[in-house]
Amino acid sequence: MEGIYRSLQWCGDSLRLLDQRELPLRTIYIDLRTPTDVATAIREMVVRGAPAIGATAAYGLALATYEKRDTTWSEALGYLRRSAALLAAARPTAVNLTWAIEQVMSQVENTASGSSANPDAETESAEGLHARVLSIARRIEESDRATNVALSRHGQSLVPEGATIIHHCNTGSLATVDYGTALGVIRAAAEAHKHIHVLVDETRPRLQGARLTSWELQQLEIPHEIIVDGAAAHLMRCRQIDLCIVGCDRVAANGDVANKIGTYHLSLAAKAHGIPFYVAAPCSTIDLATPHGDAIEIEYRSDDEVLVCNGLRLAPLGARACNPAFDITPADCITAFVTELGVVYPPYSANLAAVCRRKP
Amino acid sequence: MEGIYRSLQWCGDSLRLLDQRELPLRTIYIDLRTPTDVATAIREMVVRGAPAIGATAAYGLALATYEKRDTTWSEALGYLRRSAALLAAARPTAVNLTWAIEQVMSQVENTASGSSANPDAETESAEGLHARVLSIARRIEESDRATNVALSRHGQSLVPEGATIIHHCNTGSLATVDYGTALGVIRAAAEAHKHIHVLVDETRPRLQGARLTSWELQQLEIPHEIIVDGAAAHLMRCRQIDLCIVGCDRVAANGDVANKIGTYHLSLAAKAHGIPFYVAAPCSTIDLATPHGDAIEIEYRSDDEVLVCNGLRLAPLGARACNPAFDITPADCITAFVTELGVVYPPYSANLAAVCRRKP
Repeated sequence: MEGIYRSLQWCGDSLRLLDQRELPLRTIYIDLRTPTDVATAIREMVVRGAPAIGATAAYGLALATYEKRDTTWSEALGYLRRSAALLAAARPTAVNLTWAIEQVMSQVENTASGSSANPDAETESAEGLHARVLSIARRIEESDRATNVALSRHGQSLVPEGATIIHHCNTGSLATVDYGTALGVIRAAAEAHKHIHVLVDETRPRLQGARLTSWELQQLEIPHEIIVDGAAAHLMRCRQIDLCIVGCDRVAANGDVANKIGTYHLSLAAKAHGIPFYVAAPCSTIDLATPHGDAIEIEYRSDDEVLVCNGLRLAPLGARACNPAFDITPADCITAFVTELGVVYPPYSANLAAVCRRKP
Repeated sequence: MEGIYRSLQWCGDSLRLLDQRELPLRTIYIDLRTPTDVATAIREMVVRGAPAIGATAAYGLALATYEKRDTTWSEALGYLRRSAALLAAARPTAVNLTWAIEQVMSQVENTASGSSANPDAETESAEGLHARVLSIARRIEESDRATNVALSRHGQSLVPEGATIIHHCNTGSLATVDYGTALGVIRAAAEAHKHIHVLVDETRPRLQGARLTSWELQQLEIPHEIIVDGAAAHLMRCRQIDLCIVGCDRVAANGDVANKIGTYHLSLAAKAHGIPFYVAAPCSTIDLATPHGDAIEIEYRSDDEVLVCNGLRLAPLGARACNPAFDITPADCITAFVTELGVVYPPYSANLAAVCRRKP
C-alpha cells in the first residue's frame, strides 16, 4: 500500500507537495522550483505537521543549490544562506523547521569553514554543494520514514485480528514525511492483512480526523467511520472496541503525554471500559528533561477555531471560547508507548529512560 | 431576568415564535395566524425542543378556533379536527406534539360528545370553543413553565457561590416553553446573585451548545465560554470545576439516563475527577416502565450531521459517519436528579419511584 500518496516528493529539479489546504475534497499536487516558493507553501500551510515541514524546508534548500548549480561555489553558498533565513522565518514556531535547516546548514558551514583552509574538489563546485545539501535532505526524509515504519511494525503486533480501533487527530503520512505514527500502526496492521475497522474521532476544533485521517484511510482502503469526539465513550459501551491509539507532541520522563485536545478525555473513557490506550511516540518526542506533564505549558489558541467553521460563524457574535490546543494524559491512563525501538510498558520512569539510552 | 426572550408567545390573535433557525446570528420573531402556518413552522424547525413544540401545536389549535370564531360551533369543530391532523403530522416522531394535541382534542371531544345529548351555552358558540381550546393551550404552557421554575429553584441550591459549571447541549427556554431545565438551574443560581461561570460544551454534531445555549446565556448576561466537547476533561484537570449539569430525554427506573450524545463521556470525566454530575429531569421524563438504560433504543441519525457544517462538506466524499444521537449514562455516574418535586439522591430505584408517586 506504500506510495499511494506523499506529503512531499523530490522530483530531481522540483519539490512536489500535496496541497493539504485542498484536502479532503480535492487532491492537488504543487511543484515548487525555488526556496521562495517553498517558504510560501509552508507559510500558507500547503504542508503542515512538524516532521513534514522540516523535510520540506531541507528540500527547499536543495532547490536553492540546484538553482545555482552552474554558478560558483561561493555564490551558491550565499544564496543558500539567504534561503535558509527565508525558510526559517516561514513558520517561526515549528521546532522541526529550525532543526532541519540547522542540520543542513551546520554540515555545509562546517565544510565551508574547513574548506577555506583546505579546499577540496567537492566544495569548490556549486554542483558539489548541491549534491551535499540534497544528500542531507534525503537523509532527513529517510530517517523520518524509517523511524515511522519501525514504530508501526512494533505497534501492529498489539492490534488483534478483526480489531475496532479508535484514533484521535491526524498522525499519518500527511503529518509526517511518510507512513505516520499512530496511523502508521493502523496501516501496518492492515498491511499484515488484519481486518480492522477504525473509528475516527473528528477531533474538534480543527477537524484533523474528519478532514485528513479519513482521507488517508480512504487512500489506504482501510474501513472506517467518522465519529464526533463525544461519541467515543458511548461506542465503547455498546460495541467491542479493542484499542485506542494516538500520537503525541511530547512525552515527559514519568510517561505523562501532551497531545491534541481530547486525548485525555478519550483516555479516561478507555480506562473506564478497560480498553488498551496506546501512544505512538518516536523516541525524539520523549523529553527526559521534562519531569511530568504539569511542567508542559499548554498552548491556548484563537477563539475562532471553535466559533467559526468553513468561514461561517457558529456561535453568537460576542461569544467567547476557551480553546486549549493540547491536553495532558497522565501516565496511569496509558497502557504502553510504541516507539521505533519497541513497545514500552510501565514503570515508565525507568523504561522510557532505558529506551532513550538505546537511541542510536 | 424573566421575559427577555420567549420561544413562543400568544398574542391574542396570533402566535409569535422566535425563529431558532436564524439563531444565534439573528433574532427574528415570526407571527403566525393559521394552523397551517404553525404546522409549517414546526416542520421547518422554526421552533424545536419537545416541550416547546407541544405548546406551539396547542396554540396552533387555538388559532384554528380563533379563525372560525364567527362561524358555527360545528364548523369550527370540523376545522379544529382537520387542523389537529395537520399539526400532528408536522413532526410525527415528537412525543410531546402528539401529547399536547391529544390534551386539547380529548377535552374538546368529551365536551362535544356530551353536548350532543345536553348542549350548554359554551359549546353552542364557536367563540366558546375557542375560549376552551385557548384555555387548555395556556394550561399546557403554564404547566411547563411552573415545572421548570420549581425544578430550577430546587437545583440552584446545589450550585455553590462562585461556581464554574459545565453544561451540555441546550436545555433552556428555547428547548422548553420557558425557563429551561438544566439551564434553568443555572439561571436560577444567577438570579440568586451567585457569581457563576459556565463552560458550554459546543455539543457536536448539531452544536446546540455553541448556537443556542451560548445565545441564551448572552441574553441572560451570564458569563460563559464555549468549549469543544473533548476539552471538558482537560479543564476539569486544570481548573476548579464545581459541577456538571445536563438535561435528559428519558430516565429509566434504575436511574440510567438517555440524553444527547456526549453526556456519558462527560459523566465519566466528572466521575474521574470527583466532580458532581447532576441531571435535571422533570418527573414527566422519569419512565418507571423502562427498567434500565439498555432497554432504551438509541437513535442513529444522518451522516451529514457530522460530515457537513454550514452547508459545506468537512469530510472526504464517500466517507461515512457513525452518528448516535443519544447515549446512556449509567446511574452510578449521576450524583443526583433535580426534579420539580426536589432533589433525588441514590438509591435511585426506590427514590425515583417515590418521587413519581408524589406527582400531582
